[in-house]
Amino acid sequence: MINRQAVSAAETYVKDDRYWSYVLTDTVMNIEVPAWSLSNRDLGLPTRFHIRKKTLHGGKQEGSTLIEIETDAMDVSIVPTRGMSILDARSGDVTLGWNSPVDEIVHPAFMNLEQRGGLGWLDGFTELMVRCGFEWTGHACEDAGTRYTLHGRSANTPASTVVVQVAKAYPHGIRVFGLVKEKTFKFSDLEVWAGLSIVPGEARFEVHDRITNLSDYARAYQIIYHTNFGPPLLEESAKVLAPLLEVSPFNDAALPGLEHWSTYSAPTPCYDEMVFNCQPCAQNGDATLAALVNAGETRGVVLRYSTQQLPALTLWKNTDTLKQGYVTGIEPGTNAPYARTIERDMGRLRQLAPRESTSFDLTIEVLDSAAKVVAVRDEVSRIQGGRETRLSKAQKRFER
Amino acid sequence: MINRQAVSAAETYVKDDRYWSYVLTDTVMNIEVPAWSLSNRDLGLPTRFHIRKKTLHGGKQEGSTLIEIETDAMDVSIVPTRGMSILDARSGDVTLGWNSPVDEIVHPAFMNLEQRGGLGWLDGFTELMVRCGFEWTGHACEDAGTRYTLHGRSANTPASTVVVQVAKAYPHGIRVFGLVKEKTFKFSDLEVWAGLSIVPGEARFEVHDRITNLSDYARAYQIIYHTNFGPPLLEESAKVLAPLLEVSPFNDAALPGLEHWSTYSAPTPCYDEMVFNCQPCAQNGDATLAALVNAGETRGVVLRYSTQQLPALTLWKNTDTLKQGYVTGIEPGTNAPYARTIERDMGRLRQLAPRESTSFDLTIEVLDSAAKVVAVRDEVSRIQGGRETRLSKAQKRFER
Amino acid sequence: MINRQAVSAAETYVKDDRYWSYVLTDTVMNIEVPAWSLSNRDLGLPTRFHIRKKTLHGGKQEGSTLIEIETDAMDVSIVPTRGMSILDARSGDVTLGWNSPVDEIVHPAFMNLEQRGGLGWLDGFTELMVRCGFEWTGHACEDAGTRYTLHGRSANTPASTVVVQVAKAYPHGIRVFGLVKEKTFKFSDLEVWAGLSIVPGEARFEVHDRITNLSDYARAYQIIYHTNFGPPLLEESAKVLAPLLEVSPFNDAALPGLEHWSTYSAPTPCYDEMVFNCQPCAQNGDATLAALVNAGETRGVVLRYSTQQLPALTLWKNTDTLKQGYVTGIEPGTNAPYARTIERDMGRLRQLAPRESTSFDLTIEVLDSAAKVVAVRDEVSRIQGGRETRLSKAQKRFER
Repeated sequence: MINRQAVSAAETYVKDDRYWSYVLTDTVMNIEVPAWSLSNRDLGLPTRFHIRKKTLHGGKQEGSTLIEIETDAMDVSIVPTRGMSILDARSGDVTLGWNSPVDEIVHPAFMNLEQRGGLGWLDGFTELMVRCGFEWTGHACEDAGTRYTLHGRSANTPASTVVVQVAKAYPHGIRVFGLVKEKTFKFSDLEVWAGLSIVPGEARFEVHDRITNLSDYARAYQIIYHTNFGPPLLEESAKVLAPLLEVSPFNDAALPGLEHWSTYSAPTPCYDEMVFNCQPCAQNGDATLAALVNAGETRGVVLRYSTQQLPALTLWKNTDTLKQGYVTGIEPGTNAPYARTIERDMGRLRQLAPRESTSFDLTIEVLDSAAKVVAVRDEVSRIQGGRETRLSKAQKRFER
Repeated sequence: MINRQAVSAAETYVKDDRYWSYVLTDTVMNIEVPAWSLSNRDLGLPTRFHIRKKTLHGGKQEGSTLIEIETDAMDVSIVPTRGMSILDARSGDVTLGWNSPVDEIVHPAFMNLEQRGGLGWLDGFTELMVRCGFEWTGHACEDAGTRYTLHGRSANTPASTVVVQVAKAYPHGIRVFGLVKEKTFKFSDLEVWAGLSIVPGEARFEVHDRITNLSDYARAYQIIYHTNFGPPLLEESAKVLAPLLEVSPFNDAALPGLEHWSTYSAPTPCYDEMVFNCQPCAQNGDATLAALVNAGETRGVVLRYSTQQLPALTLWKNTDTLKQGYVTGIEPGTNAPYARTIERDMGRLRQLAPRESTSFDLTIEVLDSAAKVVAVRDEVSRIQGGRETRLSKAQKRFER
Repeated sequence: MINRQAVSAAETYVKDDRYWSYVLTDTVMNIEVPAWSLSNRDLGLPTRFHIRKKTLHGGKQEGSTLIEIETDAMDVSIVPTRGMSILDARSGDVTLGWNSPVDEIVHPAFMNLEQRGGLGWLDGFTELMVRCGFEWTGHACEDAGTRYTLHGRSANTPASTVVVQVAKAYPHGIRVFGLVKEKTFKFSDLEVWAGLSIVPGEARFEVHDRITNLSDYARAYQIIYHTNFGPPLLEESAKVLAPLLEVSPFNDAALPGLEHWSTYSAPTPCYDEMVFNCQPCAQNGDATLAALVNAGETRGVVLRYSTQQLPALTLWKNTDTLKQGYVTGIEPGTNAPYARTIERDMGRLRQLAPRESTSFDLTIEVLDSAAKVVAVRDEVSRIQGGRETRLSKAQKRFER
């Protein structure tokens, strides 16, 4: 019949015979597997892992899906119904993620992004890494009668296709790909393959996303990797390590904290948030990193990415009380999280030509020793190369 | 994993061994029982009752859940997916509830509260008792860019936990508790245990709600028990009996009906609605009641509650045509149903301190004889104590 | 219990014993059959047909339902969860429908009609025939604080009852009826029985709709049959054939194309859309037709309807690129698709008296030969009767 693809987008993955492939969701094959499990023993492999898919029930979780990957070195969980968001991860005694007052994995059917003047997104915000995008990101605004709601629609779009793969070759890397679509007649024809890969035995995972503009017209897009950490890494005197040329306040509240941008307070009543615009420097103008390390510098997490892909870095310090949300965001993006109108006027709105694709690659790695923290600190210094991190009091935008 | 409770909130109830307990919904245990049934015979008890849970299908009912309790003296039904709303009840020849043009039990997935300038709530309004709240209630308004939609979000929030309990001891009281959450990062961290209890053999049920502000900050809340009755109790010359110090018009349309505030018209084309603000008096400054009795004063329903808990009483007379909705609301609340901005400016917005809880207790009882109506009339007189019910033409608010 | 019908609306159909009847959805019987199939062999009939119902999974299709009817002469598919929209049809080498960038059959739970200033409807627009209505249609506007969103709510309302019928008598006509409700307390009490019938062996289907105002008050309604065709019929030099007294531009973009209103361009970048208001003439002031024929005049589709029922005809030429949506709409309606406020001010808003019903009947037939195209051309000429088709440059509205 018309208007329906004959071949699933999952096929590209399934036919790659270096992997065992499992299609858990697919609109073309009409599949949504409610529960599923695969362990290394099912495949006769010695490397231990366990992958589970669940459908969640009750409250605003009804219908949400969750994929949990467990390996000896790291666990990570993904929410296909929330645009392949990464809910949380764990390696040894380090948990990645945070405790939001939003304590359910909210299904998009219960969301209304238009609420509170475009802040509806906050009803579902709970993830370790949530992709903000793709037609727009950033603070809510109105432009020409359209409300651009906070951080866009991707986190509240259920994946149309989900494929789990296990490499046949040692070390049997595990990959999960989900297809997230943002399509509106006349306005948008974006498809994003949102991927996560993890190798059993390693305390890290990689994110590989590919966004394609299927339209015959050039279209703007935005993406911010809103990556969020709470305790145990976040604590009083925890620090950010990153090679930066400049740090400036994103909002007025950040100005008084500019001097101390890289260190964290204990949970602080009425702190609300300080947000900083950061200008990273990179190795060969490309590879960079940003780390959060605990006060004792014995544990940490490092985020590696490309400044070519993601030139803007936002540091969100929300060290309010534990119940209110004691959390920091390290957020590489194609742009800052100002309103789309501001980003557009500042010339920071990227375009994709017709049929053009672009990719984003990030690695998140847990640091489980002081030695590893030192190594990251050295790496940051090397990239910084003795250059000053300028502290600028001026906001890098012109609010309208 | 992070951000997910290890122990269900249902545990508090389940471990109370005076009851047989059944968890029908729970986000932590990942339970949503689609269909369930329990009768006295299942428990080997002589006192007759039957409790059923159903999942509803078709139209905008798809996914709605319904708990129906039947006893010899009274039936009552609850809608967990609509914030534990009480759909209807029956005792002998008295049915409680009303016939709304909205003839489905609408699932929140099909609701959009932002519609019609914030009147979307009217797409689902059909209940005997619907809780308006909890972050806000009342007429729609905008304030600082946020639209406070009519009567808040609670009625369109599916319960996260639902527990049914039957007392092991005679007379084997039945209780249903549901946990309704209103959580938005930065804005709200309210939890409400909405409970209903009924004792087989008695023609009444009780509502016991407990609202808790889990936030580290004081937060405003509002709740109105929008309790609605149509025929057979509502008819021409039906009356409200309540001990009141003052009655005043809530809206302009109510002014011409002020004199006759306590009696009802037959279904009347173009009547629309008259709404009155009532100032109740109470026994020991606490216990009060309000009753609706039929024209012949042979049948009625009485609502008992505390003016400490619920100081404001709204009387909603909507004696329009049968198809349009021939219904009256007797609505005790923490405040009047004016827009949140008005209630705030009038100083009627209640606060909950961090971690503070507060409770609401109401009883709804069917009166099945003229003698019982007389007894209620006497009780009202006793509490009124000869004081005048002042009729004031001024609206008790200052519309902005 | 109160507020719930004892007898399903499906009964009227089921008790008609000239048909075998199958209730696939019903709120009263609490039925939503997830998958179902019926073929002529199941009934012991020689006339070949196959009817299937599916529930769709994955992405924004999760929960959508689809009824597919296959016969030797024509296939057609219906989406009950999208207000009984007709997704597509096929007869021989002619496919009816179009390729929208929206390539999923979006479930209403994932829709927000308020988005983009009231253009949310475009997130789900993908059908051969989508009913725009019923409380309102047309371009988004705001009036007295209410936003009338593009093309109303009917296409995003799941049917409350769905009945499939097969005639016991030869030629065993197949009918599908769905009940679509638009009900809002105080505002709306509309019910529409949306029906489709098809006779095995014939290359056409009929639409029979009946809208009823159940309210005690007169209520305005609007309906536009947004009927959309792409390739293979739509191509360069394809033509519209219709007996028209006048054609005028609906929008400014249409003015330069007025002369060539009846012929189509090849897919054209940046064409966007030209929309024309057409004034049809009809046989006996009632029966009329409009056809789309391919360039070679060897294939076509003809839409027959009544100008009494549907006086306004809108021609939507959206011959933009294939990916953007190369499609034309032939859209008979009770009114033009201007904003509801404009249609109201122009006196084109129809009313239904209390309990009044009105019907709409359309036929869509595939033309599979040059001879059939000639016959339609002749029929158009006969009805035109030598009268001029006036081209008027003035828009037939007064924008406010």
